[in-house]
Amino acid sequence: MWGALKPAEPAGTCDLCFFQERPIRMAVQWFYLSFYALWFLGLMSIILTIYWMQLWHGGFAWDGTVLMFNYHPVLMVVGLVVLYSAASLLYRLPQSWTGPKLPWKIGHAALHLLAFILTVLGLVAVFQLHRRSKITNLYSLHSWLGIVTVFLFACQWFLGFVVFLLPWASVWLRSLLKPIHLFFGAIILSLSIASVISGINEKLFFSLNNATQPYSSLPGEAIFANSLGMLVVVFGLLVLYILLASSWKRPEPGILTEGQPLLRDGE
Amino acid sequence: MWGALKPAEPAGTCDLCFFQERPIRMAVQWFYLSFYALWFLGLMSIILTIYWMQLWHGGFAWDGTVLMFNYHPVLMVVGLVVLYSAASLLYRLPQSWTGPKLPWKIGHAALHLLAFILTVLGLVAVFQLHRRSKITNLYSLHSWLGIVTVFLFACQWFLGFVVFLLPWASVWLRSLLKPIHLFFGAIILSLSIASVISGINEKLFFSLNNATQPYSSLPGEAIFANSLGMLVVVFGLLVLYILLASSWKRPEPGILTEGQPLLRDGE
Repeated sequence: MWGALKPAEPAGTCDLCFFQERPIRMAVQWFYLSFYALWFLGLMSIILTIYWMQLWHGGFAWDGTVLMFNYHPVLMVVGLVVLYSAASLLYRLPQSWTGPKLPWKIGHAALHLLAFILTVLGLVAVFQLHRRSKITNLYSLHSWLGIVTVFLFACQWFLGFVVFLLPWASVWLRSLLKPIHLFFGAIILSLSIASVISGINEKLFFSLNNATQPYSSLPGEAIFANSLGMLVVVFGLLVLYILLASSWKRPEPGILTEGQPLLRDGE
Repeated sequence: MWGALKPAEPAGTCDLCFFQERPIRMAVQWFYLSFYALWFLGLMSIILTIYWMQLWHGGFAWDGTVLMFNYHPVLMVVGLVVLYSAASLLYRLPQSWTGPKLPWKIGHAALHLLAFILTVLGLVAVFQLHRRSKITNLYSLHSWLGIVTVFLFACQWFLGFVVFLLPWASVWLRSLLKPIHLFFGAIILSLSIASVISGINEKLFFSLNNATQPYSSLPGEAIFANSLGMLVVVFGLLVLYILLASSWKRPEPGILTEGQPLLRDGE
């Protein structure tokens, strides 16, 4: 998804000549620095979550046992945090700043749908274990917050699809809802991170309860998983910064183009 | 933001004549509706936290025992969530939209300082219990996230004081740092809420571990404290909405006034 920035081309032949202006070139360079930092942090979050489940909890199996639960943290970090963030930041890619908006809208919606599917699989992993082990579903505050986050994600995707992709919504309605869509996008990511933090904390209290080295003695697993949690927080902060506070975004091209329907009659 | 809506008013009649224009009156009415909702949610969060500690954990005593720990959740909800939010939203009060900025800057800094002092007392409450009961400090992910949040809060207050209150900083520097100050203000609140969520979750696993009615059977305390956690989340979302996405803010009066130093020579 994150194709390399096109090289400088002779003026008038390329879409990205726009970026040959010095301030914009600087913005692009800074963007790529943050972007590579994000790649690194997101990839590390995923690898460390897999490593945690593999090394300390026996690995993975889609069989309803405790090994199936191990997919839960991995799928949540991949779907609800990293892929969700990548999908949210798609409009911040310099390649999306010029040219038609349609492919970027489709990419944004498709990546979010993939993130949502992985998230639902992450829920299935924990519900299957609970069903087989006769553990109550949705009793902890972690699970309450998590399920509300997934519900908000579903609403956000559905409303985004109906308002910004289907052709019926007016320019006025889209302009009205766009900042709310952006706000809830950031809120869902924040709630996801709060769910991940409480989930890691809860998992450590479970797995180190009655252990020879309890959580409070900070054994290797505790230091590892606490660090993973803080890494996810740093990743989330960088995503939120790019999403809310940076100036890396597609220039507003005027209300008519802004409200351009993705799917028009006959498309 | 509301600069465009400023009506032509007879000079010197009253500060709030500004609000007599219909769109601004409507904005003020909506603001007060949200503001009363916030008051209610914030007050309920504090009362329910006190009630939880009083009813299920024996109440309060500043004596280094487990009763001293009970101040920890109360002081964190009061200081790091409710008072922090009130201080952050001070510039959103319609009364602050006109007239001199100086008193509002002082109020903003003073309320945040009070919030910080209560937060530090909340840390003292838990560290004292740990010292007396020989429990390791700062081992859980909740505590790692919490202490990072308090550290960021301290940095934010100090930098805000140095840059926006002391007279040395240039208008250019203030304009550059203002969006970063606002962004980190929102981030610190989000991290506070994530800390509260993981803290409530952790406390319930502690107190309902080996209980006749475990957490997974959702006894009264679990439902009560989970609901408290969700209430704090709703409160936080409303604060973040007003802070980041609403149009209730002091109109930007031009770069010179914007950069007005709070403390000038001789003041």
